[in-house]
Amino acid sequence: MPETPIEAIERKLLERIDILASISSDFDGITRIFLSKEMDTAAKLIKLWMNNAGLVANVDPLQNVIGSWPSENAKAPAIHLGSHYDTVINAGRFDGILGLLLSIAAIEVLQTEGYTPKHYINVLGFCDEEGVRYHTTFLGSSFLCGTFDLEALDKVDEQGISMREALKARGYDAEKIEATKPIILPGDLFIEAHIEQGPALEALDLPLAVVSGIAAQTRLEVKVTGKAGHAGTTPPKLRQDALTAAAEMILEVEKTLKSEESLRATVGHIKISPNASNAIPGQAVFSIDLRYPNYDGLQTTKASLMKALKAIANQREVGIVIDCVQETGSSECDPFIQETMCHSLSKFQEGAPTLLSGAGHDTLKIAQTCHTGMMFIRCRDGLSHHPDEYTSPQDIRAALKAWVEIIRSLDQELDS
Amino acid sequence: MPETPIEAIERKLLERIDILASISSDFDGITRIFLSKEMDTAAKLIKLWMNNAGLVANVDPLQNVIGSWPSENAKAPAIHLGSHYDTVINAGRFDGILGLLLSIAAIEVLQTEGYTPKHYINVLGFCDEEGVRYHTTFLGSSFLCGTFDLEALDKVDEQGISMREALKARGYDAEKIEATKPIILPGDLFIEAHIEQGPALEALDLPLAVVSGIAAQTRLEVKVTGKAGHAGTTPPKLRQDALTAAAEMILEVEKTLKSEESLRATVGHIKISPNASNAIPGQAVFSIDLRYPNYDGLQTTKASLMKALKAIANQREVGIVIDCVQETGSSECDPFIQETMCHSLSKFQEGAPTLLSGAGHDTLKIAQTCHTGMMFIRCRDGLSHHPDEYTSPQDIRAALKAWVEIIRSLDQELDS
Repeated sequence: MPETPIEAIERKLLERIDILASISSDFDGITRIFLSKEMDTAAKLIKLWMNNAGLVANVDPLQNVIGSWPSENAKAPAIHLGSHYDTVINAGRFDGILGLLLSIAAIEVLQTEGYTPKHYINVLGFCDEEGVRYHTTFLGSSFLCGTFDLEALDKVDEQGISMREALKARGYDAEKIEATKPIILPGDLFIEAHIEQGPALEALDLPLAVVSGIAAQTRLEVKVTGKAGHAGTTPPKLRQDALTAAAEMILEVEKTLKSEESLRATVGHIKISPNASNAIPGQAVFSIDLRYPNYDGLQTTKASLMKALKAIANQREVGIVIDCVQETGSSECDPFIQETMCHSLSKFQEGAPTLLSGAGHDTLKIAQTCHTGMMFIRCRDGLSHHPDEYTSPQDIRAALKAWVEIIRSLDQELDS
Repeated sequence: MPETPIEAIERKLLERIDILASISSDFDGITRIFLSKEMDTAAKLIKLWMNNAGLVANVDPLQNVIGSWPSENAKAPAIHLGSHYDTVINAGRFDGILGLLLSIAAIEVLQTEGYTPKHYINVLGFCDEEGVRYHTTFLGSSFLCGTFDLEALDKVDEQGISMREALKARGYDAEKIEATKPIILPGDLFIEAHIEQGPALEALDLPLAVVSGIAAQTRLEVKVTGKAGHAGTTPPKLRQDALTAAAEMILEVEKTLKSEESLRATVGHIKISPNASNAIPGQAVFSIDLRYPNYDGLQTTKASLMKALKAIANQREVGIVIDCVQETGSSECDPFIQETMCHSLSKFQEGAPTLLSGAGHDTLKIAQTCHTGMMFIRCRDGLSHHPDEYTSPQDIRAALKAWVEIIRSLDQELDS
C-alpha cells in the first residue's frame, strides 16, 4: 500500500529527529551548544524543513530560526509554536527538538489538508534554552520577546570568548541585536510541545498531557569551610573536614527530596579543595536545586532545609555560607489554552491529565510577555538530559495528531 | 651581651626558614613544586648555606642538593642527614624544610665545636618528596638510593610536560640520570628530622620524639555509577544518584576513622559527573586514604570498609568498583638508631617517647636501602600541609641541640 501524505509527514518527522541527533560536537553523544558549528548546521536543516513545510523561513541575528505561514488574510494576535534546538552536554535526542520538529510537521499536515489560518502562525526554533555556554537560560526566547538583556553580550564562556565574539565568529553581527524588533508580542499565544522529563504519563499509561504551569525553582550555593590538614596524621578530634560535613548535608537534601511527593531537591555540583587524596578537605562548595509547585511552599522548604544545614555545620564546628544564586516563581499556563488543549487531547486518548512541570522551559520566559500553553509527551522512565532519553514513534504520532488539532482549535476559537 | 656562635647558628636557622617560605610560586602562600623556578632559587640558597656551614655542596642531575663534610680520615658506612625542600600546594613552612635546615645547622655547630667525624657525613636536600607534579612520591630520595624508576622520566604533568622536558627546561640533562651513581648505599645510616604532623607531642608536653616506624598505607579509588537525570523532574524512586550514594559512603569512611584511635581514614578527592547544578549526578569517583600501624590491621580495616561500601551501593542500587591504587607496608626504624636517639633526647627533655608516623617520609623509601631513623618535632594542633603549620622557635632550638647530639653519638658509637 502506498504511503499517504500524512504517513509521509510522520515518517519524515521521525527521520529528522535522527538526523538532528547526528549533528553533534561529540562523535558518540549529542551536544549542540549555542553558536557552535553544529548549531549552524542544525539551523540550516531546520530552515530547509520549514521551507519544505510551506513556511517562509529565516535565521534571526541570534540564530533563532523563524518560519512564518504566508497568508494574506491572517490577522493578529499571532499564534507561535516552537521549542529549542540547542542541547545540554551529552543530551538525549528529544528534549527541545521534538517540540520544534513536531510543530513543523503539524504545519505541513495543515497545509496538506488545505487549511487557511485565521491568525498569523509562526514556528520558532530557539537557539539557546539550556544556557550551557553562558550560564544564562532562555536566550533565544527572550530575544524574540524583546526582553533579551543586552549586557549578556559581554558575558564570556569558559574559553574566555564573549557572546559578542562568538556571534562574530559564526558570521553574525552583534550590532543587529539591539536593532531587532520582537516577534512575540503581548496578546499573542505561544504553545510548546515537550517531552515530560518525568514519569507521570508512564504511570497514567497515556501518551499526552496538558501542562498547568511550571514549578517555582531556587538554586542555592552552599560553601562549607573547615580546615585542611594531613590525612595521615590528623586525629578525629582535630579534624574540621569540610567534605564529611558536606556529605551529611547532601543526605539531608536527599531527606528533603523524599519528604513530599511534589518536591524536587538535588545536589548536582560539588567542588572541594585542596581535593588531594592525602589532604583533609578544607572547603566544599555545592549546589542545591529545589523545585516546588508554588512559590510559598518552596520558601518554606528552603527555610527549613537551610536551618537543618546550619545545624549540621554548627554541630561539626565548620563554617557555612548559603547563597541563593537563582530563583524563579511558579508560572501558570493560560486557562483558555489549557481548556482548548484538554478538549483536543480528549479526542485522541482517554482523558486529558494536567501536569505541573518541574523543569524550566522557554514557555516560562515567554509567559512574561504573552499567553502560553504546553503539551507534554510521554518519555521512558522519566529520563532526560541523558543519551537514553526515549519517546516511542507511536507517542510521537499521537502527539502530531493532537498538535494539529490544538493549532486548528486555537486558531478557530481565538476571538470567538 | 654579644651573640655566641651557637646563638648565631640558631638565629640563622630561624631566618632561613622564613627566607625559604618566601620562595614560592604563590604570592600569598608557600608552593614549591619539583623543577619549578622556585626550586632553582631554593636549591641555590641551600647550596650557599651548606657552603657557609663548611660542607662541599653540589646539585645532582635531578636537583637534589648534596653537602659533604670534607674529612680526610672519614670512613664508610656514611651517615646521611636530610629531608625534602619541595612542598605541597599552599603548604606550611616547616614540613621537610625544617629537617634539612636543622641538619645544615647541626653540621655548622659541630664544625664550630671543632668536631672531626669518624664517618663520611652528608646532608641531603631531596628535590621531590610530595609528588605533586608527577603524582609519584620520593623521587629525590629514590634517585640517591639508586632505586629511581627511569620510566618516571616519561611521565607527564597536568600541562602535558614530561619529566624529561621539565629537566631540560631547568637546564638539566636527563641523560645524566641513568649514569649517576647512588650516594646512599646498603649499610649506610640515614636520619631525618621532621615536624610530627600530629598532636601526640603536644599532648605529652614534650618537644621531641623518636619515631619507631611509619604506618602502613593504602589508597583506594571508589567509582560509584548511578544514572544521570533531570534534577527538576526525576522523582525519588527513579533516581540512582551517584553523589548521595557517595555521601553515605563518605560518612561510612568517617565512622571507620572514629572506630579506632590509631586509624586514619580520609576522603580527600572527589569528582562527579555531569557536575551541573540541574543534573542528578550519574557518576562519583572518590579517593580513600587509609593508614594503620601495621599491615595486617590495615588489611582487616580495608576489607570491612569495602564490604560496608558495597552494601551501601547494593541497597541504593548503584554500581561500585573499588580499586587499590597504592599500598605500602609499614616500615620499622633501625633499633640501634632508635636507641641512640632515645639516649640523646633524654639528655634534653624528660623522657624520650617513641611514636609511629602516620605520614609517609623519604625515610620510608630509604629504609629499603639502608638503616634509618627519624626524630619528630612538636607542631601546633598537629596541623600540617596548611599555611598555619607552626613549630615554635624554642622547640626548634631544642631540636637543634638534640640533633647535634644524635649525629655525634651515631658517629661515635657506630662500629663500636
